[in-house]
Amino acid sequence: MNVRITGSGYYLPEKIETSEELSSKINKSSKWIISRTGVKERRISDIDVDKMGAIAAKKALENHNVLPDLIINASGVGKQTIPDTSIFIQRELGMDGVPSFSIQATCLSFLIALNTASSFISQGLYKKILIVSSDRGTRGRNFKQPESSALLGDAAAAVIIEKSSQNQESELLSFSMETWSQGYNYTEVRGGGTNLHPQDSKTTIDDNLFSMNGPMIYKMARKKVYNLIKRDLDKNNISPNDIDCIVPHQASMLAIKAYSKYGGFKEDKVINIIEKTGNCVAASLPLSFAIACERGKIQRNQLVYLIGTGAGLSIASILLKY
Amino acid sequence: MNVRITGSGYYLPEKIETSEELSSKINKSSKWIISRTGVKERRISDIDVDKMGAIAAKKALENHNVLPDLIINASGVGKQTIPDTSIFIQRELGMDGVPSFSIQATCLSFLIALNTASSFISQGLYKKILIVSSDRGTRGRNFKQPESSALLGDAAAAVIIEKSSQNQESELLSFSMETWSQGYNYTEVRGGGTNLHPQDSKTTIDDNLFSMNGPMIYKMARKKVYNLIKRDLDKNNISPNDIDCIVPHQASMLAIKAYSKYGGFKEDKVINIIEKTGNCVAASLPLSFAIACERGKIQRNQLVYLIGTGAGLSIASILLKY
Repeated sequence: MNVRITGSGYYLPEKIETSEELSSKINKSSKWIISRTGVKERRISDIDVDKMGAIAAKKALENHNVLPDLIINASGVGKQTIPDTSIFIQRELGMDGVPSFSIQATCLSFLIALNTASSFISQGLYKKILIVSSDRGTRGRNFKQPESSALLGDAAAAVIIEKSSQNQESELLSFSMETWSQGYNYTEVRGGGTNLHPQDSKTTIDDNLFSMNGPMIYKMARKKVYNLIKRDLDKNNISPNDIDCIVPHQASMLAIKAYSKYGGFKEDKVINIIEKTGNCVAASLPLSFAIACERGKIQRNQLVYLIGTGAGLSIASILLKY
Repeated sequence: MNVRITGSGYYLPEKIETSEELSSKINKSSKWIISRTGVKERRISDIDVDKMGAIAAKKALENHNVLPDLIINASGVGKQTIPDTSIFIQRELGMDGVPSFSIQATCLSFLIALNTASSFISQGLYKKILIVSSDRGTRGRNFKQPESSALLGDAAAAVIIEKSSQNQESELLSFSMETWSQGYNYTEVRGGGTNLHPQDSKTTIDDNLFSMNGPMIYKMARKKVYNLIKRDLDKNNISPNDIDCIVPHQASMLAIKAYSKYGGFKEDKVINIIEKTGNCVAASLPLSFAIACERGKIQRNQLVYLIGTGAGLSIASILLKY
């Protein structure tokens, strides 16, 4: 699909929580936290996901004179149950009238939205699409679960998608996704919906907080991700060395390092920002992408491979020529 | 886009709550309920949205030998915060491996999903897509708000989308959507997300229940919907009489009747099932569609116009040759 990312931006809240500071809340030493998750510090947002997303969106829209004609919110957890968060982001941006909706696939929302936006643009349905991922995972931390509490951080990121012009080589080359619902309970916030409704007396505080079985996810994901990479490389007739930059979901230090340890990619090509940001749920992928662009780690016409896992358990990837 | 709906199915829970029965819970006579909302009875589900959706999906998949290669959940409110409901529907269907994600635009989720699925199929990204809308709105009723309590009912519906073959005329002719976030607080469940988190002491029971300003929605929507219809007709170069069947979101009796009263469509062409089902949130549109197909009100090669409003306030429409 002949599409081009014509803008990207991100928002990292000012407030930093070091692993030293978190330590007493979860009864673990900062040494334990860092060795287990790789996260030295994470951001804590005092503003909500819509405002965070709007700041990232405005940065992505710098140097753009024409407004987007579609807004897709691609976040993990919304501002509220109804309406979906795209409405609030649109409102913050003052873009009344622009159609807005949400795509939800937890940490993979951004990849699904990028593929969807590319399909819409290739089809001529829209001209310029704004995708925003904004998550405030620290709101849902369960301090009784030290590992996930240490992993989660807040961030927002946004990109703009348009058609490539004839003299541009930008392209979305392939999209892959699989969902293995046998892993449905490895990453959960069990409350907040029709099952364990907040008004039900049997719904506990823990049900409304983030719950994660890290070792089981890693065990299940490693082989499946490895196979997905292999198939993507075969399908596109390339080898790992042909890819200039790998942008993984920042699930955990272990998960990111697996891309070089088992995935066959050189470590310096794999974007790794988890030390300073933690796992920012759906915002991690576009955040890593936007930071890599800013740092010059991603250049025009390079091959970029975005890949990750999400609650479900789902795995997805996008290969694009930037 | 050359796509064809090759299957549809629905699930209406057995349990019926008459407006007589609801009357004492909301301190209003059944006469008041019926005159105000048009709803004589609604269904109450004892099973959750994933199981409801899976029943509808199985009906839509009857006479299909090949499994779908993508599942899109297009519901209003999920089973739980994480993972998204598509995972649980896929699990109920035993379709491990099939990629699954959710599209969220409250009552309009189905229309966005239908347009998205059509784009994917036209683009050759998928071959057979299952869309499921399943809502259990009665779980979130606030009996202090008699009008919305009387409107909400439970249901699920599903459709299958595939490419039209060369000798078939089926087509998605146009899709339109607008979002007017000035109406962001006309339809709300304020809790359940990062803003009024269930664990916050300031979050009230009411925040976690459905809240609606019916008169303001009607006032804002009427003119905007009228203009959308006019533009759709112009764009497709047709008049209201060319459309064989209008499938509106079952927002309220007043809203449905407005399509004939102000929209220029003959009343007998407008699908109206609200008396027996109420407003089933995102499930209303595909439910009305599936029932219309079952009753022979929609025939192959006819022009069908799906239209509705959703929290946001958003309005959207699809014109298709069935």
